Amino acid sequence: MERSDFSLSVPGDVCAPAGFRAAGLHCGIKKQKPDLALLYSEEPTTTAAAVFTTNRVQAAPVRYCRELMAGGRARAIVVNSGNANACTGAQGMRDAREMASLAAGALSLEPSEVLVASTGIIGVPLRMEPLREGIPRAARELERTGDAAAEAILTTDRFPKTASARVQVGGGTVTIGGMAKGAGMIHPKMATTLGFLTTDARIGAEGLQRALRTAIDRSFNRITVDGETSTNDSVFLLASGAADAPALEGEEALGRFTEALTGVAERLARMVPLDGEGATRLVRVRVEGARSADEARAGAYRVANSLLVKTALRGGDPNWGRVMAALGDAGIEIEEEKTDIWIDDLPLVRNGLGVSGSVEKGRELLQAEDREEAVDLRIALNLGTGEASVWTCDLGEEYVRINVAYN
Amino acid sequence: MERSDFSLSVPGDVCAPAGFRAAGLHCGIKKQKPDLALLYSEEPTTTAAAVFTTNRVQAAPVRYCRELMAGGRARAIVVNSGNANACTGAQGMRDAREMASLAAGALSLEPSEVLVASTGIIGVPLRMEPLREGIPRAARELERTGDAAAEAILTTDRFPKTASARVQVGGGTVTIGGMAKGAGMIHPKMATTLGFLTTDARIGAEGLQRALRTAIDRSFNRITVDGETSTNDSVFLLASGAADAPALEGEEALGRFTEALTGVAERLARMVPLDGEGATRLVRVRVEGARSADEARAGAYRVANSLLVKTALRGGDPNWGRVMAALGDAGIEIEEEKTDIWIDDLPLVRNGLGVSGSVEKGRELLQAEDREEAVDLRIALNLGTGEASVWTCDLGEEYVRINVAYN
Repeated sequence: MERSDFSLSVPGDVCAPAGFRAAGLHCGIKKQKPDLALLYSEEPTTTAAAVFTTNRVQAAPVRYCRELMAGGRARAIVVNSGNANACTGAQGMRDAREMASLAAGALSLEPSEVLVASTGIIGVPLRMEPLREGIPRAARELERTGDAAAEAILTTDRFPKTASARVQVGGGTVTIGGMAKGAGMIHPKMATTLGFLTTDARIGAEGLQRALRTAIDRSFNRITVDGETSTNDSVFLLASGAADAPALEGEEALGRFTEALTGVAERLARMVPLDGEGATRLVRVRVEGARSADEARAGAYRVANSLLVKTALRGGDPNWGRVMAALGDAGIEIEEEKTDIWIDDLPLVRNGLGVSGSVEKGRELLQAEDREEAVDLRIALNLGTGEASVWTCDLGEEYVRINVAYN
Repeated sequence: MERSDFSLSVPGDVCAPAGFRAAGLHCGIKKQKPDLALLYSEEPTTTAAAVFTTNRVQAAPVRYCRELMAGGRARAIVVNSGNANACTGAQGMRDAREMASLAAGALSLEPSEVLVASTGIIGVPLRMEPLREGIPRAARELERTGDAAAEAILTTDRFPKTASARVQVGGGTVTIGGMAKGAGMIHPKMATTLGFLTTDARIGAEGLQRALRTAIDRSFNRITVDGETSTNDSVFLLASGAADAPALEGEEALGRFTEALTGVAERLARMVPLDGEGATRLVRVRVEGARSADEARAGAYRVANSLLVKTALRGGDPNWGRVMAALGDAGIEIEEEKTDIWIDDLPLVRNGLGVSGSVEKGRELLQAEDREEAVDLRIALNLGTGEASVWTCDLGEEYVRINVAYN
């Protein structure tokens, strides 16, 4: 993940960039675990960007933030876990608004400067009492590390997910930080992906939104766990402007910033399919030579979401027949006799036919005990120049067991 | 399933209609179980119709039959299980052609009068020796029952699937019979759905094809197990014309025939999601009030294929949040606050909000020990008049365990 022009090895989280403080604590929406996070920018001129779920059923905090984001400004984000405030009707909207007001009051901000995110159970009204006590407490506990916040946004994740990067751009150095929660592998009522990115770059709302959209298209929009889309998925980006660097302007500077932002977003996004019971392998599905980038992406997603491909990967079986059948069902142009498939550097299929002996070699390769790196499943359609990669994971019995048992 | 104007209670299979004989035996493609079936019509004027998989990757027998079907005539179908003859290149086409020639030789037919179907492992060349011995033997063993044939087309199915019906139409009585093999729940390399329908009606190839297309759209195209589509899926229909009844002509007669054919196809199709380890419940997902029939169908399929909905059903959990999230992700118009959901007659969601106490009642309803009938999951979008139903099944750990272990 190291790139020539920026460093991802900077340890840090949402508080790595200058001007941010964060808090995380238990207020009582969950029984015991941390369930409330607050992220705050000290700079009055902070700009904001966000991308939201494409699900037509949208949780109250998503609806609330969509309206607010028209202005491109925000100073704080208040987040609860344990309850998604989704499918909660008019009461849900009132509750999202009250969450913003509580944070605004505690931070001496306008309510319109506070964004809201929720994750957890669907269809159950949010209990506001714990938040009325917890949000002011979180405001008092703000600190210069995002550790507690990164814990408090989790639902069933096994580990907190943070990343940061520093980039030389436009004659100065700016820092980017982030945290995320995972999705979908375990408790689907809590299957939301939330991402929170911060930077101390000074950058206008329009450029910020463009940079975030590009970064998300290349990261959070390139992962899949089970093909499900949540009612609450959101990624936010706040830019404090507190870095000792000139404002970011012009295509080149914005391009460099976007690339570093993408690096942080990719690092966070790839932690998602790796987290959660049931996932043991990170898998990159790459389609090359499609008629278009859109067809490459559709093909990669179809393979990455195929139950049969994912269970084969879990079993360490390079079952290319399942891959061919999934490709054939992707609604894209494919010519069987032109198709090649590799796992890592091992050719499995050449011109649509199995390569002799490759299944045995592929099995050794996938089942190697010391294997740690992601599996690279590469497909060449040899029809054009479209290409795309999607990150997925294998799928095991735990996924089903937990999703069956969850009530 | 009893309807006023035709009877599905007639016991029988592909040999129920006059003029058909069938055989099923073990020739050696599988180790022990029956793996070769032959279906034969005694009538030289037999017409034929077929529908095939929409997968872009198509097995050799599918490609072979597509060409042949242009004529709308066939007298016999030879079927092997244990090997799908898919992703087998030019050799696969030669093998499919040889299967047809072997059957034609043994039955004194032209090769162009013989259709071919295969199901089983993908990507491995068919061993022809067992077929060269087995096909002539099957021709000698033809009998007036489809029992052995219905066994020989199975791969990992737990039970053979046959059905028949008798219908008064056009001043006479005609009979329809059928057999099918199931799909996808267990051994996905063998995930093919094959259906073989027969009738003694006298009916032109064009009307026959139209009747089959309509029947399949309402039956085999309305079931889903895991969202996967096979390289080999095919349904065939032969009409011997041997019934003591006038030729079927005119919209009314064809309509009545199509309705009875649909009844047989539905009965066979619904056995598919019920068969295979892991499936314990048949579930009808019905979407009403969509903007169009297409949107209703897309919504029903999205819900019916949702891993989270299917695992919830397995757990006996009326988790309507998962249903709402799947609907929102179906690419169709949905307004959360207009949406109602029921399980059987129990309202779970009214105007997008959970009905108080309904989750507990729904749990009792789903978990009732004596429950045998299919689960009825009904969704009203209240946006238009489009409606559609899809049949699916629940999904449990067995599905994953077997698909992980299968090599």
